[in-house]
Amino acid sequence: MKTVVIGSGSWGTALAQVLCDNGQDVILYGNCREQIEDIEQNHRNSMFFEDVELHPDLHATLEVEVVADADIIVLSVPTIAIESVCRQIDPLLKKSVIVVNTSKGFHPETNERISEVIRRFISPAHLHSVVSLIGPSHAEEVVIRLLTAICAVSLNDDDAKVIQELFSNDYLRVYTGNDEIGSETGVALKNAIAVASGVLSGLGYGDNTRAALMTRGLAEMIRFGVAMGGKAETFIGLTGIGDLIVTCSSRHSRNFQAGYEIGKANDAQAFWKYNKKTVEGVRTAKVVHELAEKMGIEMPIVNEIYSVLYEGKDPKRSARDLMLRDLKPEA
Amino acid sequence: MKTVVIGSGSWGTALAQVLCDNGQDVILYGNCREQIEDIEQNHRNSMFFEDVELHPDLHATLEVEVVADADIIVLSVPTIAIESVCRQIDPLLKKSVIVVNTSKGFHPETNERISEVIRRFISPAHLHSVVSLIGPSHAEEVVIRLLTAICAVSLNDDDAKVIQELFSNDYLRVYTGNDEIGSETGVALKNAIAVASGVLSGLGYGDNTRAALMTRGLAEMIRFGVAMGGKAETFIGLTGIGDLIVTCSSRHSRNFQAGYEIGKANDAQAFWKYNKKTVEGVRTAKVVHELAEKMGIEMPIVNEIYSVLYEGKDPKRSARDLMLRDLKPEA
Repeated sequence: MKTVVIGSGSWGTALAQVLCDNGQDVILYGNCREQIEDIEQNHRNSMFFEDVELHPDLHATLEVEVVADADIIVLSVPTIAIESVCRQIDPLLKKSVIVVNTSKGFHPETNERISEVIRRFISPAHLHSVVSLIGPSHAEEVVIRLLTAICAVSLNDDDAKVIQELFSNDYLRVYTGNDEIGSETGVALKNAIAVASGVLSGLGYGDNTRAALMTRGLAEMIRFGVAMGGKAETFIGLTGIGDLIVTCSSRHSRNFQAGYEIGKANDAQAFWKYNKKTVEGVRTAKVVHELAEKMGIEMPIVNEIYSVLYEGKDPKRSARDLMLRDLKPEA
Repeated sequence: MKTVVIGSGSWGTALAQVLCDNGQDVILYGNCREQIEDIEQNHRNSMFFEDVELHPDLHATLEVEVVADADIIVLSVPTIAIESVCRQIDPLLKKSVIVVNTSKGFHPETNERISEVIRRFISPAHLHSVVSLIGPSHAEEVVIRLLTAICAVSLNDDDAKVIQELFSNDYLRVYTGNDEIGSETGVALKNAIAVASGVLSGLGYGDNTRAALMTRGLAEMIRFGVAMGGKAETFIGLTGIGDLIVTCSSRHSRNFQAGYEIGKANDAQAFWKYNKKTVEGVRTAKVVHELAEKMGIEMPIVNEIYSVLYEGKDPKRSARDLMLRDLKPEA
């Protein structure tokens, strides 16, 4: 079986290397010449991994036509690029492929989950199934082979197992799951909570505050996910609380970092002015705020982070407003 | 209403100061002359809080007789001391008091939860109710008034509300709950998982590994807690995942620190030889291992940390054994 990984960012590179470690036939496609040449010539992807020498068998190309005879295509691009990448590769495909989604978010205009977007833009004749390979996994740690556990989630149980077997090894443990709605909602929503967590840290709050935020954030994730059609128990697994944990407190998380800068400045203006990176949680906060409002779901944390990001609300005020709601039973 | 806080350690001191901030009638009793004099004379508890000046109204005493006319007694002592403290104060009590438990663990010999121990050693005439005031709360942060959320959990709903009102203010948010079994099991068990989390960090593993451990650890907590008679939903609240989060990754956590040293040395021997502090998770791992074995509950993480602590198992080996169990569905 031949796998093509699309996207030469940190996660695409790390996943392609996993397949090299597993002795699989894999190639990385990307459109950034600098990265592709760095991988091909130096066995490095210096833009993301400063000191890491990549597997010698890892090859990368600028030719998108490489997808033609793939059996498995791994999409490792930001959520805003999913639609255009699908449109680009669909006419090139010659087989019915498993498309592996690794993005965490929603379509920026239609608010669809990423699996839905893939099913809309890859024609049925070319699409065997969509499998989301998601969970608590900083690329920076997978690329140096630190123990990591993630999920292969699909409506197609057999293909979830195919992806599980393909990627599993002695440092990457892949579980299977089939709650596509719950898992994809969980990994998306946690990015918005992570921005909030960063804001609190930037404001100077500590571990207690963060634990409270994450606990109440999980409650929001479950409320929202169940309303969308997901299962509550999914949110206490790797694609729920697991991914929330890894994103809310790690220096590797862009979402946390963005929030941290906003908290530090006690203002989101500089973030909007100077940030050039994809911060999925910022986008997700908007989507979820809109959907939750429409559906009447109580989302106090998402609403506060939305206000900070899009309505210029003072972050310190937001934190205290969240904290000083009426005293009540927890459940 | 008069409150006596028993125990001049970090948490007792922080909670007594909360009541001072709230304008309550409170006094701290402890048996360590150095700490009591430090509080009385210097408004400090330097052994725990190096640079913190405590509330000027916070008073402390070496006279245990101060409990006689208390309405509320807060126990802030290690789990191994709960029985003896209850035996000591019961004959002195003149009213029927609310006993507030803040300890997280089990009786070291009988394996009882702490509320059960209190009910056994405070005579019914003296005991209005037990309320456990527990959740994600490092004393080091409460004492400098960083936003914190915890739970007042009791079989007596009214008394839970009394304690909620007593302690709540603009930096401490107290929720109520009534799943005594679930909450007390959660806060105890999380200490054992935190030792395991420290071991992984000491071994050099990163955020991904920790997130996986905590997620699978939560699953164990729920399995165990439900088998003991607790409610699953309690474990996704402040006394479950919330307390797990704060303990598994904070430098303030003794449980994490103990694990970290063991991981660093890749051996538990030095810990047993040199450690002088109370590390509740080490004790809890033993209690839970025994109970789970007796009841046939699958607890892979607790069993591995038990093996590392009590059977001399190599920590690195333990981590890999946990990781490389059969591939399977997550749920």
